Amino acid sequence: MTLSPTPRSTIKRGKNRAVTEREALHAVLDAGMVCHLAVVVDGAPLVVPTGYGRHEDTLYLHGSTGARSLREAATGVPVCVAITLVDGVVYARSVFDHSMNYRSAIVHGTALTVTDPDEKSLGLQVLTENIAPGSWDYARPPSVKELAATSVLKLDLAEASVKIRSGPPGDEDEDVLAGERWAGVLPLHTYWGTPEPDPTLVGDWDVPEHVSGRK
Amino acid sequence: MTLSPTPRSTIKRGKNRAVTEREALHAVLDAGMVCHLAVVVDGAPLVVPTGYGRHEDTLYLHGSTGARSLREAATGVPVCVAITLVDGVVYARSVFDHSMNYRSAIVHGTALTVTDPDEKSLGLQVLTENIAPGSWDYARPPSVKELAATSVLKLDLAEASVKIRSGPPGDEDEDVLAGERWAGVLPLHTYWGTPEPDPTLVGDWDVPEHVSGRK
Repeated sequence: MTLSPTPRSTIKRGKNRAVTEREALHAVLDAGMVCHLAVVVDGAPLVVPTGYGRHEDTLYLHGSTGARSLREAATGVPVCVAITLVDGVVYARSVFDHSMNYRSAIVHGTALTVTDPDEKSLGLQVLTENIAPGSWDYARPPSVKELAATSVLKLDLAEASVKIRSGPPGDEDEDVLAGERWAGVLPLHTYWGTPEPDPTLVGDWDVPEHVSGRK
Repeated sequence: MTLSPTPRSTIKRGKNRAVTEREALHAVLDAGMVCHLAVVVDGAPLVVPTGYGRHEDTLYLHGSTGARSLREAATGVPVCVAITLVDGVVYARSVFDHSMNYRSAIVHGTALTVTDPDEKSLGLQVLTENIAPGSWDYARPPSVKELAATSVLKLDLAEASVKIRSGPPGDEDEDVLAGERWAGVLPLHTYWGTPEPDPTLVGDWDVPEHVSGRK
């Protein structure tokens, strides 16, 4: 299945970097933890970082951070969501051809508040599992009061685009032939550090496997 | 000097996470490489990732990616820029108190195209140095043609907010006292991998120090 681009989700620049497969969209979304959610407030743009999770072709967004933008979004106004993963810095021979390697997804649509209890629970589950895999089963489930205090938004993935840059720099032939400067890519990686137990834990605890073994 | 919050840049939720010092804003901006730039296009929000750099209290944004949004921004319309750094995942005893540790800056303002040649060069320099420190001096400088093909936007840092979350989870007392579950923080770190020389390099090259020694 391919994406269904509309004029605003059709990439106009760097077309060779556009990827139209739905699997690629899912892969970018599933690799990220934080999205940037943009809404229009009083005619001006507002963008905030927030957590998200994906279930099939629906993106669920968290309502506990950036509450103002989410209140706007929940009224059924247009939103735009970007997820960006930086994979490295591209050192070209010329300043002009410097770049970054990255994977990026942009989703356009109308965000709706999830009201159905079962779907709200599903949305919270995929949100939680995207940020902290294993926590949905391990941690204390939300109480009725906590559920009521949490807002979950849903956004259909129908209108989306993916852009990926990878590989070496694209220097001009003259710069390559001149042979005067090094060029290449410096990859950027992330890793999980040593778990830091909560100081309020009492007694001896083994760090649970879903935390200590996180890849 | 402290930030000068306006109603839209005053954080309403999680006030204990708001940081009002200008140094904190600079620190977040200087620690990031990619920002998310939001504009309004035909009444709908559009958010794209792009490179940036800071000089004193001005943010310079790159015009080679997300060109459509930057064309909009260059017309003097309101923009919103977010820079987000994720420092770890906060595993609480309850699903509800799960969180992330992060540093986040949001800037509101009107982006303007830089037309003065000296300022354009300065903007490109801080942009380049923020993504690839050392490259401005090492790489071939932009040609007149390349300069003309590059658009640089400037955005004043007058209206901005910073939000930082750090430290252990904030579980409910009942969950802490129950002593039934582990809680803590799993820090997220980044590191630079092994430089990957451009396959078109001819002969033997040492990776330059500004690349191999990047911290």
